[in-house]
Amino acid sequence: MKTRPLILVTNDDGIAAPGMKALVEVAKTLGEVVVVAPDSPQSGQGHAITINAILRLKKVDIFKDIEAYECSGTPVDCVKLAKHKVLHDRQVDLCVSGVNHGSNASINILYSGTMSAAMEASLEGIKSIGFSLLDYSWDADFDSCKPFLKELMVFVLEHGMEHCKLLNVNIPKLKTEELKGFRICRQAEARWIERYVESIDPRGQKYYWLTGEFTNDDKGDDTDVWALENGYISVVPSGHDLTRYEAIESFKALESEVAV
Amino acid sequence: MKTRPLILVTNDDGIAAPGMKALVEVAKTLGEVVVVAPDSPQSGQGHAITINAILRLKKVDIFKDIEAYECSGTPVDCVKLAKHKVLHDRQVDLCVSGVNHGSNASINILYSGTMSAAMEASLEGIKSIGFSLLDYSWDADFDSCKPFLKELMVFVLEHGMEHCKLLNVNIPKLKTEELKGFRICRQAEARWIERYVESIDPRGQKYYWLTGEFTNDDKGDDTDVWALENGYISVVPSGHDLTRYEAIESFKALESEVAV
Repeated sequence: MKTRPLILVTNDDGIAAPGMKALVEVAKTLGEVVVVAPDSPQSGQGHAITINAILRLKKVDIFKDIEAYECSGTPVDCVKLAKHKVLHDRQVDLCVSGVNHGSNASINILYSGTMSAAMEASLEGIKSIGFSLLDYSWDADFDSCKPFLKELMVFVLEHGMEHCKLLNVNIPKLKTEELKGFRICRQAEARWIERYVESIDPRGQKYYWLTGEFTNDDKGDDTDVWALENGYISVVPSGHDLTRYEAIESFKALESEVAV
Repeated sequence: MKTRPLILVTNDDGIAAPGMKALVEVAKTLGEVVVVAPDSPQSGQGHAITINAILRLKKVDIFKDIEAYECSGTPVDCVKLAKHKVLHDRQVDLCVSGVNHGSNASINILYSGTMSAAMEASLEGIKSIGFSLLDYSWDADFDSCKPFLKELMVFVLEHGMEHCKLLNVNIPKLKTEELKGFRICRQAEARWIERYVESIDPRGQKYYWLTGEFTNDDKGDDTDVWALENGYISVVPSGHDLTRYEAIESFKALESEVAV
């Protein structure tokens, strides 16, 4: 580890979110910190980027003695702007995203702006960790998370990351003494059972609002959902290659049998 | 194959895009078609969903004799609304998304609304194909693509899909006689070299606009980028499990050595 590693901090709940504050407070004990985060909540933005509109980037004085910028775009936009307009050629040693207010375990990684920001950094070759606490409340107890945030960041800074550049870390809503430790997992094959609440606006037009419940039929004890339900902090080494290699053979008939 | 399979059609370029029209025209020769697509262009939306705002859904008469709806949300919102507010309990046999104006090969799958819509359907257990033509022009020649769209849709309807529910299909911008056929591939490990164009708005404030070039250092001849550069239609069996299984062992030390 360098004496003062450079740590980029971002999130999807917006630069003023309490989860971001906790992450900054931990990161600054380990290295030089630069924050580039959305100027408004961006939950559910997934890997969205802004290509058909402009972006703003504004230096702000939110965190004492920390270089920080708010950005008008998505979490992924923040990482791209951080790289090109804030950090330029400075080598980033670690990107941390979060701490998200609510779970990003299982398939939530796909919808999560927190995880997409971390993944975007990993696409640039930067070691990245996305953190989430299983508590949607704005008043969630992020202070209790700090020792775990620090241990993971230190581990990655000291050991590096083999075979992947991205960790999806979820912390259960438990008292510290109830936590059993870290557990390295795979992403659970869970899903959302959703519905739309229908209503009528003041002009008489129908509108819809998404709601739903997360459900897990994946009974493996090696999944992140299992870990969280059993008192562990889940750590899923993650990537961006969506190829299903085991399916390639089953489509090979297309190459030979179907005439183009 | 059922006599009249039910085919859901969506995209990210908006319901009025020429690529959508081509896809509908092919799909209706194979089965009953329902279209639910964004009311405006949604490129780069990735897997974004609308959770902090309302959604609108409006029946439109764009395609002759085809049930069609435009939605105010993202491509993923369209698929969720299609399932819950349009199709209800009707079993969808195939979801096709596109034809996208421009490539979604390699890591573009992450940013692509076209592919995220198809992936969302696959998360619901629906066999899905995302189609893209490597021509960003609104006047691109989608008619030449139609035979290939049809062959792939027929193949999936007849053979089903083993080990995956999602295909990422990209078609090179070539004359039909120059095309060499389908090639089953993995996602290339390519990347974008990006920059932000800086300018000043009429009120004197700086703004940024993303631009960049796609570049591929992955020299494998089994990638989608290789296939496209060599005259093939690339077909990548894809999924949504981001776990890097090969990395799990390297983080196991966290479980034992780091005290929580």
